[in-house]
Amino acid sequence: MTDHPETVQPAHHGYISAKSAYLARLKRIEGQARGLQKMVDDEKYCIDILTQITAMTSALESVALGLLGDHLSHCVHEAVAAGGEEADAKIKEASEAIARLVRS
Amino acid sequence: MTDHPETVQPAHHGYISAKSAYLARLKRIEGQARGLQKMVDDEKYCIDILTQITAMTSALESVALGLLGDHLSHCVHEAVAAGGEEADAKIKEASEAIARLVRS
Amino acid sequence: MTDHPETVQPAHHGYISAKSAYLARLKRIEGQARGLQKMVDDEKYCIDILTQITAMTSALESVALGLLGDHLSHCVHEAVAAGGEEADAKIKEASEAIARLVRS
Amino acid sequence: MTDHPETVQPAHHGYISAKSAYLARLKRIEGQARGLQKMVDDEKYCIDILTQITAMTSALESVALGLLGDHLSHCVHEAVAAGGEEADAKIKEASEAIARLVRS
Repeated sequence: MTDHPETVQPAHHGYISAKSAYLARLKRIEGQARGLQKMVDDEKYCIDILTQITAMTSALESVALGLLGDHLSHCVHEAVAAGGEEADAKIKEASEAIARLVRS
Repeated sequence: MTDHPETVQPAHHGYISAKSAYLARLKRIEGQARGLQKMVDDEKYCIDILTQITAMTSALESVALGLLGDHLSHCVHEAVAAGGEEADAKIKEASEAIARLVRS
Repeated sequence: MTDHPETVQPAHHGYISAKSAYLARLKRIEGQARGLQKMVDDEKYCIDILTQITAMTSALESVALGLLGDHLSHCVHEAVAAGGEEADAKIKEASEAIARLVRS
Repeated sequence: MTDHPETVQPAHHGYISAKSAYLARLKRIEGQARGLQKMVDDEKYCIDILTQITAMTSALESVALGLLGDHLSHCVHEAVAAGGEEADAKIKEASEAIARLVRS
């Protein structure tokens, strides 16, 4: 992004506007992963560890859904507006990502 | 759909081309629901019933993902190609449906 | 269960006490599967169909979780109380069913 | 665990035998969380980020299922073998944790 310093760079990816918010959420998730290690190391009660894992999974899922929504609103939107084969390819790709997410 | 009998109706919804395939899959799912009742009535082993429920849930999930893919390829695609506020509304609506699906 | 009319039969499976409740819930789920076919046949809006599928998946999941809880409270409980290899086998089997459920 | 240094401590929790394996898996998951931050910071393609999130969710789910299996094999097993109200409470608690896991 730095090789054209004089031009305003387009936001290539939909999440860019909320980049710092996503980074903060992922930082918190990283903290949860560290907290889990401490819980295991301290031999905390299994059920309490499971509760924390459930919270962490939900937080990750929220990030995924946010990114997917941004992707549809920006990348897919733009590709469809531009038309052509690229539009179909983008929609197919998004559908496959959704399927992976639902099945995970 | 019957109030304009003399005109060819456009395919309003994306799944229409595969309508009979979807109906067949849902018919099979209905049969699975009946099979589960028989298993409970016959007091089959819980784990075997759970295995059947898992199969039925996967079948339902596949139908949902198929419909969602069709929806993106047709309804959302058309709305975005047409442009305007409708496009954004359709994408927002699809994103919310995806979130419900992922969280269910 | 009727070939030993003079003896009191043990409840082999945990869900037996709530059998009619499970049957009623599965009957309702079967109705949801039929309702979905009607929605597809009537070419209802995709998103509304997806909402119904999500509701049906949640209903199925609740039945699965209920059966699993009953299974742990009865079958697994009894096997463990009786001790021996059977106990370990039952717990392993239940764990595998849980994994299938979580991943479905 | 350190206030009775002269006695051999019983393994209170089921996962203790595999503690270092769990710690290694959680360390890897923490690394995935850091990798995701780098991907967002570098503005990688959304779909690639989603693929990584899906992998991380699966890894977390596996840890949860492992811990749950250990919990059933050890804590719940012991409580049931000991009998009494504690057994029922442990099974109820495990069932609730399973429900949270399935619904997350």
